Amino acid sequence: MEKVHLYVDRLSQPSRAILIFCMVNKVDFEEHLINLAKRDHKQPEFKAINALGYVPAIDVGGFKLFESHAILRYLCYAYPCVQDHWYPSDLAQRARIDSILDWHHSNLRRGSAGLVLNRVLGPALGLPLNPQAASEAENLLKLSLSKLETFWLPGNDRFLTGSYEPSIADLSLACEVMQLELLDRNDIDMLLGPREKVRKWIEKVKKATEPYFEEAHDKLYKASMRLHGNKLQVNSNGTALALDSSRKALSSKL
Amino acid sequence: MEKVHLYVDRLSQPSRAILIFCMVNKVDFEEHLINLAKRDHKQPEFKAINALGYVPAIDVGGFKLFESHAILRYLCYAYPCVQDHWYPSDLAQRARIDSILDWHHSNLRRGSAGLVLNRVLGPALGLPLNPQAASEAENLLKLSLSKLETFWLPGNDRFLTGSYEPSIADLSLACEVMQLELLDRNDIDMLLGPREKVRKWIEKVKKATEPYFEEAHDKLYKASMRLHGNKLQVNSNGTALALDSSRKALSSKL
Repeated sequence: MEKVHLYVDRLSQPSRAILIFCMVNKVDFEEHLINLAKRDHKQPEFKAINALGYVPAIDVGGFKLFESHAILRYLCYAYPCVQDHWYPSDLAQRARIDSILDWHHSNLRRGSAGLVLNRVLGPALGLPLNPQAASEAENLLKLSLSKLETFWLPGNDRFLTGSYEPSIADLSLACEVMQLELLDRNDIDMLLGPREKVRKWIEKVKKATEPYFEEAHDKLYKASMRLHGNKLQVNSNGTALALDSSRKALSSKL
Repeated sequence: MEKVHLYVDRLSQPSRAILIFCMVNKVDFEEHLINLAKRDHKQPEFKAINALGYVPAIDVGGFKLFESHAILRYLCYAYPCVQDHWYPSDLAQRARIDSILDWHHSNLRRGSAGLVLNRVLGPALGLPLNPQAASEAENLLKLSLSKLETFWLPGNDRFLTGSYEPSIADLSLACEVMQLELLDRNDIDMLLGPREKVRKWIEKVKKATEPYFEEAHDKLYKASMRLHGNKLQVNSNGTALALDSSRKALSSKL
């Protein structure tokens, strides 16, 4: 099979999903860093890969494709090394995965990406913080996490759609939830504290894809440490608390 | 093949896309109206079909599915009466269609649905108008229409992805653009006036799916007339103008 050229930044959640997918499935690939903080995605070299200028994107022998769900589906179809459970040939199962992936766009992703960008990440990418947009995104995210906990996740030690093995939907949505690592600890606790099924499911996805899941998230953990480090923070109720010196300790609780 | 029970409201753009698809492809289906203005989508009867409470949704012999792109893909896979061009078996072609459909969620759809809901449609659905949200959605919509015109549409009398025949992406995105019919004429002219390729492509999609496209849009045209009718409007520059008594005359220009 033709080598897949991956254009990604590991700080981007859909980039990590594709990277982990390729690593777990032993797809022959080469990673090309498109550094978002350095605005590599706006340079002509990358626009020749994705004219719309965002990651992730792939180039397979001159066939160029972007949008992470489209890329994941394509890799499942085209690479025989990918096991069926990632995107099942059973039509009803596949349709349920498609349904979750489509729901993701307008709900979990919009909430999570909007909150992280407008509350903490913006300046690193040359964008201003926007408290009102962050607050609106937070409301959508809370609703989305509630739906994930009470509707999409079947519990009983299963993955999304009730499968005993992960699909591309698990990978895509889990990488999205992991993006919340960039928030401060109060926000993470507020959002994920009440979501036990979500936290257990993230652990299951990590385990099913180890060691690649953690490896792909290392840049995120380091960015989180740079953002929040050892600094003292004050809760909304006025209590001072020290964040872990290592955010990795926190991440392991996710 | 098993009959498809369609739960739709023709005022919803993805509902119309699925309805037209079934009519054009002679899929055996029965239409069930879920009247959004009457909040049918929040009733227990419909929540038994889609627990998340939105249209469109289908029930095929007890198999329940929602999210319009997932439904369209499923119908293409499962119904042999559907011709290949709607969702090609060629993997690269199919991936390009997936890429457009995924792009649609966070761009054209978010802009169009956000603008129409917050500028004109909200009250009919029991929601307040929100000028700021409308303005933000308008900006995203303008950007999305520009991308549709200059990047996604190949021109030269082709459909999306450069095909000579329409795909599910053409149907989904065309129904989205048609939703702008609910805006007032100034807004429509401002948004679509400069987008000649978009307007020509809508005509192509209409023609490729006639008479079903217009039939499925009749409720939208009537709603638009109720919203804007014959009333006198004043431009932002103070000039009074009379809107067409029949919005259908306007629609035919789209």
